[in-house]
Amino acid sequence: MDRDITAIIQGVLSRDTLAIARAISLVENRSEDAPTLLKALFPHTGKAFIIGVTGSPGVGKSTLVDRLALHYRQEGELVGIVAVDPSSPFSGGAILGDRIRMQALGTDPGVFIRSMATRGNLGGLAATTADVVSILDAAGYQKVIVETVGVGQDEIDIVKTADVIVVVLVPGMGDEIQTIKAGIMEIGDVFVINKADRQGVERMEQGLRALLELTERADGWNPPVVKTVATQNQGIDELARAIAAYHQFRQSPDRPDERRRQIAEYRLIELLRDRLLLIALERGLRNGELKELARQVADKERDPYSIVEEIASRVL
Amino acid sequence: MDRDITAIIQGVLSRDTLAIARAISLVENRSEDAPTLLKALFPHTGKAFIIGVTGSPGVGKSTLVDRLALHYRQEGELVGIVAVDPSSPFSGGAILGDRIRMQALGTDPGVFIRSMATRGNLGGLAATTADVVSILDAAGYQKVIVETVGVGQDEIDIVKTADVIVVVLVPGMGDEIQTIKAGIMEIGDVFVINKADRQGVERMEQGLRALLELTERADGWNPPVVKTVATQNQGIDELARAIAAYHQFRQSPDRPDERRRQIAEYRLIELLRDRLLLIALERGLRNGELKELARQVADKERDPYSIVEEIASRVL
Repeated sequence: MDRDITAIIQGVLSRDTLAIARAISLVENRSEDAPTLLKALFPHTGKAFIIGVTGSPGVGKSTLVDRLALHYRQEGELVGIVAVDPSSPFSGGAILGDRIRMQALGTDPGVFIRSMATRGNLGGLAATTADVVSILDAAGYQKVIVETVGVGQDEIDIVKTADVIVVVLVPGMGDEIQTIKAGIMEIGDVFVINKADRQGVERMEQGLRALLELTERADGWNPPVVKTVATQNQGIDELARAIAAYHQFRQSPDRPDERRRQIAEYRLIELLRDRLLLIALERGLRNGELKELARQVADKERDPYSIVEEIASRVL
Repeated sequence: MDRDITAIIQGVLSRDTLAIARAISLVENRSEDAPTLLKALFPHTGKAFIIGVTGSPGVGKSTLVDRLALHYRQEGELVGIVAVDPSSPFSGGAILGDRIRMQALGTDPGVFIRSMATRGNLGGLAATTADVVSILDAAGYQKVIVETVGVGQDEIDIVKTADVIVVVLVPGMGDEIQTIKAGIMEIGDVFVINKADRQGVERMEQGLRALLELTERADGWNPPVVKTVATQNQGIDELARAIAAYHQFRQSPDRPDERRRQIAEYRLIELLRDRLLLIALERGLRNGELKELARQVADKERDPYSIVEEIASRVL
């Protein structure tokens, strides 16, 4: 094994911040060394509790995540935060959000924060996020919070690999409660109504509880609804308790951990998809051929379906 | 070629609603006949003007799209609407939205409406949407409106294949203008402030224009900002004019259509990714093997990276 990679692996396992950052970069850049790194770290994973936090833009997710991180820090736990913004083309994510965040948590060596942005055309942000979480897990962060902007399928894919999924809402969505989609209602293990000092919080809560009652979960868990005012640190303890309750519920011995298996299956499919595409692009296409084929499709000279069949038969 | 498929192709080309619906189902269900169908329809595509409409839940996209569709109908054009909700696990999309929609447009034979929902674990909703748009294009709908809920990467991928991208906002997001992500600012060709009878519309407009001035587009287009109150049919004519202006701008003869090439490249990659995964799952894995491998990963017996390498080398 490459000496550099060995050093990075050792560094990650001894929670060296620089080594962790380098490991994450290798994964983000899809370096050839990434699989070696991840394979070596794999036996050291599985100890972190992974908390996925999702919700529409503007609901105050970042503040909530920061407060929750501070809560865990006060309990002496090491916290990793991965903030994913699939809609931002910039690495570093939401610029303003990051600056504020750095002031509150940035100087605490017990917290590691990483922003991740666009996945680009080659996809795989959910898979990359899962790999970054694995690195933080192997490094010994006991709580890893994955925060993602938005409520689209990509965001759902990202938080799906978490042990608990926290869905953040705000009052004023009450009028349009039908816009809280069934997909979100299904994945949420804990619901937060943030900015709970705003008007309409009771109506929001009633609507949400009514919707939750309509949704029967296969595992029998009843997702609690927690009201918070993250900017004033209100409700954060209760949120942490709700998360811990779900953690305990899932660990009860009479319940095989079906969710970890589903997550593993999902990851295998994602990894396979990415790997096959990369191999096909490398082996199946000459330099510049993709652009030329795209031109032919755009100019209606050839249809894309025949082209894809041809490339597939070249590699397979 | 299968007689059934031939009949569906003929039906689509003569704009038979039932045939179109069957063609779309074949594509959605990833039928083996779908490539045949799409190859046959391909030469008949390229005539429709495709309008992508995106924005957060609750901004009134559906109403806006319906009004815009009515506008085009009054000008004598045939309109296809594809409403995509990646976060909903239900086919048929937002249930309430659909019911209202049917009342306004459902009886007009010059409008074809289709809801599309979750992509499932095997992905490809953006690619499927593009195929559905191709079917409507081949069927002779002159305007095809692709409406998608949310502002995540998946939604961006979906609207990216449109000829013009309309981003819908509402007042009251002004406070949190930083949450309108750079990714959205970059892809929007036309911006709409809907519900413009609400408080805060001026501040919203100023903030938006300021942000737009910061973003320089490679093609030199300055995205206009249109204020609408869709429920009262206000601003719809202006929106249609803004869309037409961009259409004209793109068609100017001194500008090669780089966008259509980018779209074609993106579609090739998406199609290739899906095709390879399907082949690998079919050929590379025994029945039930994926579940067993997922269990091994969940129980930390094997790491997912080695497994994926093994499957890839089996098929390639």
